[in-house]
Amino acid sequence: MSSHFETPTDAEDAYYDAIEECDLEKMMATWEDSDAVSCLLPMRPLTHGREPIRELWTPMLNPEFRVEITVNHLQWIEQGDIAIHLLEEMVTLTDSGDKQTPIYAVRIYRNSDQGWHLLSHFNSPTPPPPGIMPPQ
Amino acid sequence: MSSHFETPTDAEDAYYDAIEECDLEKMMATWEDSDAVSCLLPMRPLTHGREPIRELWTPMLNPEFRVEITVNHLQWIEQGDIAIHLLEEMVTLTDSGDKQTPIYAVRIYRNSDQGWHLLSHFNSPTPPPPGIMPPQ
Repeated sequence: MSSHFETPTDAEDAYYDAIEECDLEKMMATWEDSDAVSCLLPMRPLTHGREPIRELWTPMLNPEFRVEITVNHLQWIEQGDIAIHLLEEMVTLTDSGDKQTPIYAVRIYRNSDQGWHLLSHFNSPTPPPPGIMPPQ
Repeated sequence: MSSHFETPTDAEDAYYDAIEECDLEKMMATWEDSDAVSCLLPMRPLTHGREPIRELWTPMLNPEFRVEITVNHLQWIEQGDIAIHLLEEMVTLTDSGDKQTPIYAVRIYRNSDQGWHLLSHFNSPTPPPPGIMPPQ
């Protein structure tokens, strides 16, 4: 079951809230109610379809492993019923305070009679900061 | 200067042909003629704008390091003036025949009075095949 979001930003806010709250139903409500949805998390296979995405997220939203994600907005593109958001995700493990290396995310939203929903989410690593690796 | 492509597939074919032919002008003609364009190559920073993308690709299209890329189509979504293509890229170094690990690509095309062009290209690693890494 999907929620009705008036804007792509509303769907995005609900997605990151769902992660922080470890709320699987809230997470699934941000995805479009169709089998066109796809999700690529870091170093995982690309996952297609609502049920496989539910299975992917179920162990990730375990309340014993809470994370906080802050995002750095890089680009928004809106074109008709599609919105594309490029951002960086900064993940902090709530218990330890450990921060992971930032990761890029490309998020594609689609508008329909049911409102705006997430169609695709793709993570990609960021390169190491200058000086961490020797020059090539 | 961008070429006029009748379909997103025409722009995509020209992009991969440009890589195989080490043809920078042909590559640049596949990108939309705007500063909304963005490109993420493996383990590189996200690059925005036509001129930075030209600088990114210039050393990559060196004829001394030819590559052949075959693609495995995973999903096409068309919605109005936007087309989204998810695929895997299989890169082979032409001289040695060495094959790199496949990489995912998300490619977003936009239609305008000038035809279809590439708006965004994002690579992301694929996970290692089962059995290569010990189970977690």
